[in-house]
Amino acid sequence: MVKIKDLKIGDRPEMALKFQSIQIKKTTTNDDYASLIGFDGEDLIEVKIWSLPESKKDLLRSGEIYIVSGLIKDYQGKKQFNVSDFRIASDDEVDKSAFYEYAPLSKVELQTKISGYINKIKNPILHKIVVTTLKKYVNDYFEYPAAVTIHHNYIHGLAYHVYSMLNLSDTFLKQYQYLNSDLVYSGIILHDIGKVKELSGSKGVEYTKEGNLLGHIAIGATIVSGIAESLGLLETEEATCLIHMILAHHGELEYGSPKEPLMAEAALLYFLDYSDSRFASLEKFYRTTNKGEYTDQIFAFDKKSFYVPKID
Amino acid sequence: MVKIKDLKIGDRPEMALKFQSIQIKKTTTNDDYASLIGFDGEDLIEVKIWSLPESKKDLLRSGEIYIVSGLIKDYQGKKQFNVSDFRIASDDEVDKSAFYEYAPLSKVELQTKISGYINKIKNPILHKIVVTTLKKYVNDYFEYPAAVTIHHNYIHGLAYHVYSMLNLSDTFLKQYQYLNSDLVYSGIILHDIGKVKELSGSKGVEYTKEGNLLGHIAIGATIVSGIAESLGLLETEEATCLIHMILAHHGELEYGSPKEPLMAEAALLYFLDYSDSRFASLEKFYRTTNKGEYTDQIFAFDKKSFYVPKID
Amino acid sequence: MVKIKDLKIGDRPEMALKFQSIQIKKTTTNDDYASLIGFDGEDLIEVKIWSLPESKKDLLRSGEIYIVSGLIKDYQGKKQFNVSDFRIASDDEVDKSAFYEYAPLSKVELQTKISGYINKIKNPILHKIVVTTLKKYVNDYFEYPAAVTIHHNYIHGLAYHVYSMLNLSDTFLKQYQYLNSDLVYSGIILHDIGKVKELSGSKGVEYTKEGNLLGHIAIGATIVSGIAESLGLLETEEATCLIHMILAHHGELEYGSPKEPLMAEAALLYFLDYSDSRFASLEKFYRTTNKGEYTDQIFAFDKKSFYVPKID
Amino acid sequence: MVKIKDLKIGDRPEMALKFQSIQIKKTTTNDDYASLIGFDGEDLIEVKIWSLPESKKDLLRSGEIYIVSGLIKDYQGKKQFNVSDFRIASDDEVDKSAFYEYAPLSKVELQTKISGYINKIKNPILHKIVVTTLKKYVNDYFEYPAAVTIHHNYIHGLAYHVYSMLNLSDTFLKQYQYLNSDLVYSGIILHDIGKVKELSGSKGVEYTKEGNLLGHIAIGATIVSGIAESLGLLETEEATCLIHMILAHHGELEYGSPKEPLMAEAALLYFLDYSDSRFASLEKFYRTTNKGEYTDQIFAFDKKSFYVPKID
Amino acid sequence: MVKIKDLKIGDRPEMALKFQSIQIKKTTTNDDYASLIGFDGEDLIEVKIWSLPESKKDLLRSGEIYIVSGLIKDYQGKKQFNVSDFRIASDDEVDKSAFYEYAPLSKVELQTKISGYINKIKNPILHKIVVTTLKKYVNDYFEYPAAVTIHHNYIHGLAYHVYSMLNLSDTFLKQYQYLNSDLVYSGIILHDIGKVKELSGSKGVEYTKEGNLLGHIAIGATIVSGIAESLGLLETEEATCLIHMILAHHGELEYGSPKEPLMAEAALLYFLDYSDSRFASLEKFYRTTNKGEYTDQIFAFDKKSFYVPKID
Amino acid sequence: MVKIKDLKIGDRPEMALKFQSIQIKKTTTNDDYASLIGFDGEDLIEVKIWSLPESKKDLLRSGEIYIVSGLIKDYQGKKQFNVSDFRIASDDEVDKSAFYEYAPLSKVELQTKISGYINKIKNPILHKIVVTTLKKYVNDYFEYPAAVTIHHNYIHGLAYHVYSMLNLSDTFLKQYQYLNSDLVYSGIILHDIGKVKELSGSKGVEYTKEGNLLGHIAIGATIVSGIAESLGLLETEEATCLIHMILAHHGELEYGSPKEPLMAEAALLYFLDYSDSRFASLEKFYRTTNKGEYTDQIFAFDKKSFYVPKID
Repeated sequence: MVKIKDLKIGDRPEMALKFQSIQIKKTTTNDDYASLIGFDGEDLIEVKIWSLPESKKDLLRSGEIYIVSGLIKDYQGKKQFNVSDFRIASDDEVDKSAFYEYAPLSKVELQTKISGYINKIKNPILHKIVVTTLKKYVNDYFEYPAAVTIHHNYIHGLAYHVYSMLNLSDTFLKQYQYLNSDLVYSGIILHDIGKVKELSGSKGVEYTKEGNLLGHIAIGATIVSGIAESLGLLETEEATCLIHMILAHHGELEYGSPKEPLMAEAALLYFLDYSDSRFASLEKFYRTTNKGEYTDQIFAFDKKSFYVPKID
Repeated sequence: MVKIKDLKIGDRPEMALKFQSIQIKKTTTNDDYASLIGFDGEDLIEVKIWSLPESKKDLLRSGEIYIVSGLIKDYQGKKQFNVSDFRIASDDEVDKSAFYEYAPLSKVELQTKISGYINKIKNPILHKIVVTTLKKYVNDYFEYPAAVTIHHNYIHGLAYHVYSMLNLSDTFLKQYQYLNSDLVYSGIILHDIGKVKELSGSKGVEYTKEGNLLGHIAIGATIVSGIAESLGLLETEEATCLIHMILAHHGELEYGSPKEPLMAEAALLYFLDYSDSRFASLEKFYRTTNKGEYTDQIFAFDKKSFYVPKID
Repeated sequence: MVKIKDLKIGDRPEMALKFQSIQIKKTTTNDDYASLIGFDGEDLIEVKIWSLPESKKDLLRSGEIYIVSGLIKDYQGKKQFNVSDFRIASDDEVDKSAFYEYAPLSKVELQTKISGYINKIKNPILHKIVVTTLKKYVNDYFEYPAAVTIHHNYIHGLAYHVYSMLNLSDTFLKQYQYLNSDLVYSGIILHDIGKVKELSGSKGVEYTKEGNLLGHIAIGATIVSGIAESLGLLETEEATCLIHMILAHHGELEYGSPKEPLMAEAALLYFLDYSDSRFASLEKFYRTTNKGEYTDQIFAFDKKSFYVPKID
Repeated sequence: MVKIKDLKIGDRPEMALKFQSIQIKKTTTNDDYASLIGFDGEDLIEVKIWSLPESKKDLLRSGEIYIVSGLIKDYQGKKQFNVSDFRIASDDEVDKSAFYEYAPLSKVELQTKISGYINKIKNPILHKIVVTTLKKYVNDYFEYPAAVTIHHNYIHGLAYHVYSMLNLSDTFLKQYQYLNSDLVYSGIILHDIGKVKELSGSKGVEYTKEGNLLGHIAIGATIVSGIAESLGLLETEEATCLIHMILAHHGELEYGSPKEPLMAEAALLYFLDYSDSRFASLEKFYRTTNKGEYTDQIFAFDKKSFYVPKID
Repeated sequence: MVKIKDLKIGDRPEMALKFQSIQIKKTTTNDDYASLIGFDGEDLIEVKIWSLPESKKDLLRSGEIYIVSGLIKDYQGKKQFNVSDFRIASDDEVDKSAFYEYAPLSKVELQTKISGYINKIKNPILHKIVVTTLKKYVNDYFEYPAAVTIHHNYIHGLAYHVYSMLNLSDTFLKQYQYLNSDLVYSGIILHDIGKVKELSGSKGVEYTKEGNLLGHIAIGATIVSGIAESLGLLETEEATCLIHMILAHHGELEYGSPKEPLMAEAALLYFLDYSDSRFASLEKFYRTTNKGEYTDQIFAFDKKSFYVPKID
Repeated sequence: MVKIKDLKIGDRPEMALKFQSIQIKKTTTNDDYASLIGFDGEDLIEVKIWSLPESKKDLLRSGEIYIVSGLIKDYQGKKQFNVSDFRIASDDEVDKSAFYEYAPLSKVELQTKISGYINKIKNPILHKIVVTTLKKYVNDYFEYPAAVTIHHNYIHGLAYHVYSMLNLSDTFLKQYQYLNSDLVYSGIILHDIGKVKELSGSKGVEYTKEGNLLGHIAIGATIVSGIAESLGLLETEEATCLIHMILAHHGELEYGSPKEPLMAEAALLYFLDYSDSRFASLEKFYRTTNKGEYTDQIFAFDKKSFYVPKID
């Protein structure tokens, strides 16, 4: 199928595009039109749909893949796709996986890895709470990204982020033996559980109303507290410590944690979350920057441009 | 019964004292002794219990009232009570109510007033959640203070604080008619519900472990979320908005709210909580400061000393 | 008369417009032209006046109403009015009141309401200062808005803001009886008196040079101090307390108060000013946002978008 | 007369002392006693006056010089003077000037120096305002210190601080010729005029009620504005600029300026005030610190200890 | 030669332009083009070079002067120069000095002035370090600007900034005699020495890689420390104090000083650097603003617009 | 030898004590005496040396071990040792190692471990700089603590801190493969090299003058820059990157880094330094706190008390 990079002004292609950042606007003559971004799995193109009958408007969904046709125009030096027709693509005609970004590990691999850590949790109360929570949300937990943008914003990103942190935690647990590994593993596995309600899904991700008004930290605390209550474990030391870790995992009040870490295990959870989110963010920039040059501004590092050393 | 203000150096009184700020320490010879503050309903006196057998140590509880005897000594220009014997006072021999501070309204009055507001909540979902929550915690809700120190730190203080805010809210609801009164009333009534678990009780109040690790904001959110779930109402607009109001009632991230107000009703809740806690704090200082003079440093106003105008 | 909403590309209307945000710029050929916003009482339209003889340039005044004629063009999808001729409209041909926003109460109503509160000030010194000040600035006081943008930015806005605060203050005075109502009323009535010099007028409002260099807080303090001096009352307790309230009404140094509140009455003035300015701001956004949706970014709330609950 | 440094435990001296930091307290037997610091012109000693009849209490004034008699005791390794009798010293029996700190220049010298600068102000409006203001406050202006503690806290300190700044300003005026020297001189001379009402006097200095509630910045603005008004000059460009300079001379909102500098001359005033107050502060520390050692903590430099280089 | 101000749409000039802010971009057809700003010594013009063969791309250098030819077009109401050919201008055909901004004093004058101050340094160790450092970097030191933008951003700006500060320092040294003049002079002369490596040169200045990664403060410290070591003077009191002054000259940690001033001489260095950079910045704005008007936003003063008083 | 814990009031022991926190003060009779803390390898005791001839004063050195004799007194309920005679202990009579705290690994072990990492640095320039620097400072590097208090404040603490970070770094290098391991290892090994000049030694540690005025960050940069220069490697990419890492290792300007991390390797160095210093700090508190209890206030965590979970 034709690709964006091959399009020329005046072409009239039919091709598959994923729609993103959809906005419905009004023309001077007060008609609706859609302004959005199209993605062919490799490149982005600006898209306008000037004629938009009511019946078609409902088909527009951020993250969905369409078969579109229309005219390529020049607008202020850039190509613009004036789409005259579009319909949702079927799985047969398009390999949809090419349109989405995925974690480096598959869902099955992530489930195996994380299960391995769950089996290492010896404390029966923590084990019970973790297993019950994951069972309830198993589908979303292993599908969702970890964020709308910024870091791990790809399919399975949430679970991959958890797995990365578990991996890093082992060195710390070995070096600082006073840390309780059961709490550390449980805290890492559940710290972002609230994201299954904060985010809208695994594709074309945006914040839900609950996400905006409550946030994944408070949602996570109520999920775990609800499950602990249903298991008759809410009043246990384990539940209190685990919920504290979820509440405190952003590390500081100004980053949205209603409590700052007051346990060594909560402090470690914060450090690991902080580190993994930042180094995973950086990775994307390093992939597209040559040695000896500066990256674009990095949101996760206060919009600074990083330098990539010219050293082998 | 003898009062602190009448004691002289060398006296050997037997009298009723409430014990506060109890600390167990070691003498040079490695024996336990207790250092605490005694309160006779009017004045405070420093108390030392040098001889403290294991059997008696367990009797010491902050906020409890005792019959004590011993010797009044001079220590660095102040009276110190060296208690040689003490036992818990019975209700018969002491009018215990004189030892505690109470809200200006009685429990019954507060229940009547707050019930009046609950009846004004017309939205059935909000009404159901409020009624069910208060029913579950009715005893503590109408007994607890609103804080360890700072503001409304007296018996029934929590309910009185709620009632004051409801009272103030009516003028705002009248002036800004776009506000939803059902949400405002429900939010005010439940905003501090987490304090029934954050604080240890109505007398000799201190923070519980849950209070320290989770805080009343997150506890309140999990309480209301748990009750909404048990009523099958967790996924309603009403529950989400109400939990947002609880989470946002400290107004800013740095004051421990994981979300800042994103609804007009949540902003009003924050303003009323902020105002009532500060003006109730101020009241205590104004009671003990003459016109034309400065108060002591006020914790709720960044330790500033306020001036009381000499104006009739 | 024709309205903006009915204009079509190519029309050549003659109509009444209020001019705002006037900027004089240079064309490529170095001639002056005017770029501004036109308002017909309901809608806004972009206006260009390409031919602008020196004689007409002086007629351009922000906030004035004109009879204009010219051509409606399309510019980047929006209508643009290329005005070829304009003159100031007379009161006969246009109902000018339709072009301005007004407070919900009329000037007469506001005078009556505020006079009622002045009559409640029993302290003769405060009464004298308040009455003398208002007498001196009576015209501007009851005409001016309370701000250039943000809140109460309409005709009579200053007085309406004062009246709203007086209204809210009564509940607080009843609840916290240690507050001195004479000071509270006087402080509210005079707190923004400096705005009669900080702002340029009641229409097409902008900051004066004094406004920029001194600000309404310092101007207000010098106005009241000058009047107190002329009455021989500058050295009174009342004058000092009242000036303190004016200085402190922004509540914190970083908001431009050279002193933070050091009297309960000054703290209340700050809370009421803070609350009324924010809730009046919010009101405008709520009027144009449907239930279940988010408002535009609100300047008075750190550019946050508020959610309007879908609850009856 | 006997000096503090020669006193020994058990001595019963009669000597002259200036009283400072006077506090009236209660003994265990509920009698009044005074606790204060005595100064003999060179050293400090702790003083207690245990017997304090009502008639004598009124004699106690911070900054006053007394003839005292009593017993020298040892209290926790330090000498303590238990004063049994005291009376105000007459000018005949004591050289009072030895008890106070003075500026390096005399009142007459300062008047001459500052008059020289006033004569250099060519703008008639600024000259008129400056001359009229100084005439009104001439006594206090040349007697007062510039602060309670921190910097220039000695007799004539206010005028000496002004003179130092005028002196420094000449180099700047020469280097940056776009600065208006009339404004700079006028601003420096009047910037701290509010201190004549903020502080209680030239000896035993403390903050007045006006000082606490209004502060010298606002007081200064109202003084100059009042004088400008009485001269019919309030609406002049000169008065507005001068008052702006007074308001802005602390440089930042958080230091109590309600406006930050918006004129080059106001920025210079801020820099000079900032510099002179800090370097004058430092001077006192350098006098008592050897080369190669660290000073005590310096309040004006965030409590840092400065190092005095061992360099000739 | 023709000037920008005389150009008209449709002209085809050949003229001399200095190129600045050069950006290489891609056209829709994926060809390189250059977008830059041209400067003729008086005015700026937007330049596009649509045809840019590989051979010519390497000729483009920020700050270089070219002979260009092409067509003047109109782009959104502004003139745009579509350059079809360009080559580096020779010194013969263009008076290059007209294209650069210079300090008010010549290189020779600055060398004489600064040498005068070096001769006043009596301490042999400080004298040796200063002389050796300046000798090593003499060419760049007297050519470089003091910054990329903001202040003293012209040829010889670094040395002129040093000279201005030396000039101002004399008044302070006279007024606060406890200051060590040798340290003050040495510190001023060397405080910005790191800029000879932080900046790329005297024309078309930008930050070097070392500038970005190390900054002129740390570079300056290592330069002086290296020279002191080579002279066998690294362990001296003088070297330590001098390096401290360089490290501390931005005054606060948040402005990039790893140590805040801990010596009076370091504090003075900071004040003088702060003052001179700001007043030199202001000067440029005052030159282009009429009395009674506001300047553009000034970066060095938090983007505030300053008012230029209408006072003679 | 007798131990502090066995001493009783009235005892006259002869025993070995390490002296710490030595202060020379004046008695009322103006004689010198010493006030200090004694440490017997397990417990601390307050020590006074009232009789202190000039000859003995020079023997007093923080961190030295003495044989002392004198009388045990009671002072305000605590034991106080009034030392009448003391002399420096010889290695024969006392096992001095019992008086100091040591890292968990021996000097030899640390040298072996760190050498292992140095051998893994393949880049010849980085390898050369690291080896040359460590060779120059080998004795101090493996003896010094990492800080005066707070973290790793024991003998070999500096090297142990480095080893811990190297250990933790391996997991990160494996997980984020875009990181350059040579830079990471070199940066970790040299990041605190400036401490060999910032601190006074390995026993009785305090800040040197260079430490106070320059700090270990700037000292470290000048050390590495000096060595790179002596090797002819100063202008290399490797040296610039390595010095950047040293400068940036405190992560933020306000913590004393003159540059914030601008390379991924520098960000990792900061995270590892931050984490290891905090978790090593915590370890000491966990050793002395029971499960289910709170630690004392922890300086490295904003003086918070941490909770030790009661979970096995």
